[in-house]
Amino acid sequence: MNFRIAIVGSGAIGSYYGAKLAHGGSDVHFLMRGDLSEIRREGFSVHGKGENFRVAKFNCYNSTEEISRCDLVLIAVKATSNADLVDLVPPLLHQRTALLTLQNGLGNEEFLAAHFGAERILGGLCFICLNRISRTLVERYDYGHIVIGEYGRAPQSRTHAIASEFKRCGVECSVVEDLALERWRKLVWNIPFNGLSILAGGIDTAAIIADKDLLRSTRALMDEVIAAANKCGHQLARGAADEQMRRTETMDAYKPSTLIDFENGKGLEIEAIWGEPLRRAAAAGTPTPRLEILYSLLKSLEQARQRAARTDNRPL
Amino acid sequence: MNFRIAIVGSGAIGSYYGAKLAHGGSDVHFLMRGDLSEIRREGFSVHGKGENFRVAKFNCYNSTEEISRCDLVLIAVKATSNADLVDLVPPLLHQRTALLTLQNGLGNEEFLAAHFGAERILGGLCFICLNRISRTLVERYDYGHIVIGEYGRAPQSRTHAIASEFKRCGVECSVVEDLALERWRKLVWNIPFNGLSILAGGIDTAAIIADKDLLRSTRALMDEVIAAANKCGHQLARGAADEQMRRTETMDAYKPSTLIDFENGKGLEIEAIWGEPLRRAAAAGTPTPRLEILYSLLKSLEQARQRAARTDNRPL
Repeated sequence: MNFRIAIVGSGAIGSYYGAKLAHGGSDVHFLMRGDLSEIRREGFSVHGKGENFRVAKFNCYNSTEEISRCDLVLIAVKATSNADLVDLVPPLLHQRTALLTLQNGLGNEEFLAAHFGAERILGGLCFICLNRISRTLVERYDYGHIVIGEYGRAPQSRTHAIASEFKRCGVECSVVEDLALERWRKLVWNIPFNGLSILAGGIDTAAIIADKDLLRSTRALMDEVIAAANKCGHQLARGAADEQMRRTETMDAYKPSTLIDFENGKGLEIEAIWGEPLRRAAAAGTPTPRLEILYSLLKSLEQARQRAARTDNRPL
Repeated sequence: MNFRIAIVGSGAIGSYYGAKLAHGGSDVHFLMRGDLSEIRREGFSVHGKGENFRVAKFNCYNSTEEISRCDLVLIAVKATSNADLVDLVPPLLHQRTALLTLQNGLGNEEFLAAHFGAERILGGLCFICLNRISRTLVERYDYGHIVIGEYGRAPQSRTHAIASEFKRCGVECSVVEDLALERWRKLVWNIPFNGLSILAGGIDTAAIIADKDLLRSTRALMDEVIAAANKCGHQLARGAADEQMRRTETMDAYKPSTLIDFENGKGLEIEAIWGEPLRRAAAAGTPTPRLEILYSLLKSLEQARQRAARTDNRPL
């Protein structure tokens, strides 16, 4: 199967996985903003642990009309930009185009399903540490594998075909039976670590687990998320928290991506990571007092920052 | 009764109430750090709503040995400096000297009782908005009344005598039967508003209650504090939260003192306001998940700030 693939969202995630696919010989087309002359001239490079390569011919475009119809669209915009997809995606669609969202948190598959039809939608979870250095370079620090699944369905033949295409291009990719369960499992880590790292003053995972009170809050948040997942019908074992804590203890000190975004003044996916899980927990009748307070604080902190940014940029 | 009074702690609270007493003709002696020549020459002034006065002869000293024995000592240092009191207080004591702490939160009476004897100790809660402008000037914005009580005892004749002395000097002062109950009642406000205002990005009381999610967190924190107080044997009615919310809705937008301290790089009384109530709730077996997370975040944020301050001050 020869996929024609579009990448919508050229941040670190979209660029990296798109570049891997292009480097592996897939037919990949990137939507990018702004002046494309440099990247068309120089191509796109990936540096990092055990991999250094350049995609010399990087097919990029300012509009999805220019890309036109594809078999697979990777959605990698920030969830805060989802509204833009309503106009961006249609030119890419034919009858059987699949949309694979690599976005974080909950609610993105539902958004895409509502606009483009549930049968097109797959979701993927990326386990990777990346940094977009410039328009033409991304650095990969660690990991890289993707877990993909169908939205609200068991895997189909296309699911395995997409996974095979990733694997053929050197991306570790596994197919899961229950995508929603995996999304909740990832939130067990993201909700505490991404949130606390920002609110506690910009600290990394090692600093969080070295502080006995923050560690207790982390564990308690994990337990809340597991209880909420279970109440929402996704069978996460209690042991999921232990497993994630062990993994975090053995990994190097790590700044969660949302903390890096926060420090760089970029928008946070507050609704996808904290808001939507909180609303689903509330709808299922599970108390999540810690998640509730994390959400209210992050939302307000983000608004305070946006106000400050507007003031800084006010014309003199 | 002619009190000889010492003021230990010459921040806004100590200076203001000491100045009121001195202006009313009490025999007041201030412990102050640093060069005293300016304040001895110029005296100390209070400006504000409905009051403008200067204490021309402001008795201040660099040591408590110079002040020597007093009948009443007002303790107004930050709780974070309590360890200094162990050496500062003894020169002020005679057999019947009373110690009245005007500090915030829980644990200060216990600290003083452990070092100087429980029978000496009284506590006071100050309801006031002040700002120390300079070494010789404090501005009072609103309120001013004090609520005092005995530590672990019903009011005694000295309690009423101290209250009368305040009243004679123009400070509204009432005597309460149960000091600990009043401390918890004040925490019902301080725990949410002081904590959230800092963690949510430096916002005032009006901004907190205008945000529906922060408002919900505020109410839920108040309920946790009331439940903890009740479990610790202090009968706070559920209605205490409604009462405080109504008061907050009618007052002007107000930055809690800890937020102002935080913004000015001054130390926060985290243990007195959040840590000690949390420990008492835990000891009594009351779950306080929101208080727990607030405490862990504030402590870490404060440490992050202290690290940043040390880095900023590093010699070149």
